Amino acid sequence: MAHRDEPDCLRQLYLDWTERMAANPQMSIADMRALFDEWHQASGEPTDVTYEDGEVGGVSGIWCKPLGADESSVVLYTHGGGFAVGSAASHRKLAAHLAKALGTQAFVLDYRRSPEHPFPAQIEDATAVYRALLADGYAASNIVTAGDSAGGNLAIASVLQLRADGTELPGAIIGFSPWLDMEHTRPTLQTNAATDGLVQKAVLEGMSGMFLGEDADTKRANPLANPLYADLSGMPRMYLNSGTHETLQDNAEGLAANAERDGVDVTLHVVDGQQHVFPFMAGRAKVADDEMAAVAAWYTGGK
Amino acid sequence: MAHRDEPDCLRQLYLDWTERMAANPQMSIADMRALFDEWHQASGEPTDVTYEDGEVGGVSGIWCKPLGADESSVVLYTHGGGFAVGSAASHRKLAAHLAKALGTQAFVLDYRRSPEHPFPAQIEDATAVYRALLADGYAASNIVTAGDSAGGNLAIASVLQLRADGTELPGAIIGFSPWLDMEHTRPTLQTNAATDGLVQKAVLEGMSGMFLGEDADTKRANPLANPLYADLSGMPRMYLNSGTHETLQDNAEGLAANAERDGVDVTLHVVDGQQHVFPFMAGRAKVADDEMAAVAAWYTGGK
Repeated sequence: MAHRDEPDCLRQLYLDWTERMAANPQMSIADMRALFDEWHQASGEPTDVTYEDGEVGGVSGIWCKPLGADESSVVLYTHGGGFAVGSAASHRKLAAHLAKALGTQAFVLDYRRSPEHPFPAQIEDATAVYRALLADGYAASNIVTAGDSAGGNLAIASVLQLRADGTELPGAIIGFSPWLDMEHTRPTLQTNAATDGLVQKAVLEGMSGMFLGEDADTKRANPLANPLYADLSGMPRMYLNSGTHETLQDNAEGLAANAERDGVDVTLHVVDGQQHVFPFMAGRAKVADDEMAAVAAWYTGGK
Repeated sequence: MAHRDEPDCLRQLYLDWTERMAANPQMSIADMRALFDEWHQASGEPTDVTYEDGEVGGVSGIWCKPLGADESSVVLYTHGGGFAVGSAASHRKLAAHLAKALGTQAFVLDYRRSPEHPFPAQIEDATAVYRALLADGYAASNIVTAGDSAGGNLAIASVLQLRADGTELPGAIIGFSPWLDMEHTRPTLQTNAATDGLVQKAVLEGMSGMFLGEDADTKRANPLANPLYADLSGMPRMYLNSGTHETLQDNAEGLAANAERDGVDVTLHVVDGQQHVFPFMAGRAKVADDEMAAVAAWYTGGK
């Protein structure tokens, strides 16, 4: 299985979802969660990783434990899915690939999801896990917050919250195709609409509405909901990526520009022709395996 | 997490599915597969197991490799889901718990599903995997065919096919709540209907129709579709179970009686108050962990 290369598998999955959601516009949130839990299908099973259900800081999730990984280092992984769908289960393989590449463990949290739990419940859960990791003896510098899409937002916003609280910050932040713009006004949302298999304005409008909840419009420019509005001074080093075929391409680009503006050590990797969260294809497509290797080189280089 | 005991979690999952299917009677097969892929939620993550995507005999699936397991022994695991839904992914944790209890590896195959691929495609795939395992050097006596529900049927029917072909038979067969009766006439289908959270006659009728395909009614008593019609002489030792709250309780009971009739070494475990495939709750409920221990004791005792 080592040699398979299926670089179109994520786009095919997205097109299938898009078709199924269009066929069933009244799809319940429960059924939509079942659909998005298929995200794991885009990833190959990472070899040499064990798993364990866990609870950290009162938040349940899955520990990913690559054999031989440094047990003093951990990725705090917040899954994507518009704050409403996706789960530790849908992202187990992706997080395990990342942990394996970095030589760390990962904890993928099942944070409370919208619409049942709107903003900032997700940030509260992520910061509760972070504080519990510190209390359990992990050095802040050995913790990485990481996530994709809405979870990429949380990987950044939760650190903004920790900074506001005066808590010692993690050593690094990783955002795969972070979704940041809650106003849906940035250019690639339109200019890449034809090539993105999944993420369209109508979907994002529904999800930002559920996420921000009551008086949503008053929160769309809150830096904790949209870190593009944040002063990033003093934030940890960051790795951000996106693909040129995705509508959120410029969310990562915008944050990287702001990080440079504010003196943060930032690496941005925009990959030609890729879909939303293309690292999902780890174990199934070379472009994703190469990206994991690039993140690993960046991480190791900064230690 | 070692001490949690959530013995009602499987019933709750089944009731949720039943409600969602009732709310959407036109649910597509793709969406129904997404729904049943939630089956894994009933299981805890087994610790100390690694995984690998594989292909055996041209059939893809997931290898479950408990740390320290005997690499010369393997469970060939056929998942349940009415031959139409369920997957290696939905049953990864269940198969891994079983492999870990037995001290073996497991290969959970993604056999071709109905309605796209009716009977006997599933048996062809299971026997192709078995023959490839023999060709790869596994001793027949070190192979166990195992499965649940429709996959429990396949774990038996595939061995009937191997016997007909004159192939050396596996060392043992394990059937968790096997679904065998394709005529829907056995008594507990009615007498346990009120306590079973999922498996009702209408669901089974739909699934047997998709499974048997064209001229379904001419195949309902075929011993390879319903092993209750088979002469079991010469079959390997068998472990069968079911629960007293499930409609398929008497499918396992009937096969155990036939096995005794035909001189086969059979162990039957009917567990009070349990739902369909209650071993799914391994890692989450003591009754399922106890069942895994009972299967392990039976397996080891016969080696």
